[in-house]
Amino acid sequence: MNTDIRILGISGSLRRASRNTGLLRYAQECFPDNVRFTLADLSSMPFYNADIANDKPEAVRTLIEQANNADAFVLACPEYNYSLAPALKNALDWLSREPDLKPFSGKAVAIMGAGAGMGTSRAQYHLRQVCVYLNLHPVNKPELFSNAFSSSFNEAGDVVDPALQGRIAELMKALLAWHFQLAK
Amino acid sequence: MNTDIRILGISGSLRRASRNTGLLRYAQECFPDNVRFTLADLSSMPFYNADIANDKPEAVRTLIEQANNADAFVLACPEYNYSLAPALKNALDWLSREPDLKPFSGKAVAIMGAGAGMGTSRAQYHLRQVCVYLNLHPVNKPELFSNAFSSSFNEAGDVVDPALQGRIAELMKALLAWHFQLAK
Repeated sequence: MNTDIRILGISGSLRRASRNTGLLRYAQECFPDNVRFTLADLSSMPFYNADIANDKPEAVRTLIEQANNADAFVLACPEYNYSLAPALKNALDWLSREPDLKPFSGKAVAIMGAGAGMGTSRAQYHLRQVCVYLNLHPVNKPELFSNAFSSSFNEAGDVVDPALQGRIAELMKALLAWHFQLAK
Repeated sequence: MNTDIRILGISGSLRRASRNTGLLRYAQECFPDNVRFTLADLSSMPFYNADIANDKPEAVRTLIEQANNADAFVLACPEYNYSLAPALKNALDWLSREPDLKPFSGKAVAIMGAGAGMGTSRAQYHLRQVCVYLNLHPVNKPELFSNAFSSSFNEAGDVVDPALQGRIAELMKALLAWHFQLAK
């Protein structure tokens, strides 16, 4: 039996020094050796458009394959105007068009985010509502809301604060436990 | 091993002919013999008040005991002004004061509701957000939104429409499967 676990990370922020992508880079370091973590590349994902859905661009096909192969997801959720970043929502929307919600159905997901003030909590609750339709099962606890404009991150967007690093590690541990509980 | 499953139903509507309570009465009929279903009685539950939390009224103590003993929950969720009915929210709030969220933590819950127009969907998504804190795991699919002002219900609030009866039965089946998946 292959006990490798494949986890796909998706960040809703495209900029190079994104703190949200920084959360995912640190998350990747938290997993044991049997976890294969892939960070999705949304840099050339087109907006969903039914006119191109039958002849999907390569970026879309790649993401679908990565998601179909994933056992679980980690979503880094920026907050724009109290709700989701379109880059993340668009990736989920493309994947949701696959038959029977195959990329997502019944899988575990961890959600986290870096932003101002309330740490993307408002966007994260919108994302949790979207997960109902996608039939993804989000980790309940711990939740992770971080301040993007603090010394928790360096200028490259890397997580440098040991306390935040610890919270990310806890969430990834909870994700693996939740995945195993669902997959048993 | 005792394979009996104990399910606690809580309706956010107190009136005798409540359609929401009617959903729970029909839900009770859907379960196999090894399920013991209890319908909570909120008729004499006081509003949460820290001044009485150390000497809890009997209605509160009874609900806590019922919830601690429950393996899973069914919540019938009316919608008042686009959000939760205080009777339901108050019951959850009392239970949430127990140490370590013991009445709820890690358990499965099915959510359904009867209302106007959108069938309490707005309130149900608020309730799902509350479940994050309570560490309850809601069934994702099927969702159940029903029209309280249709011929699906008789004047006593009983579910008389076979299509709605079938949807309730499906949701209860999904709840049991979800409970077993989480409890394995």
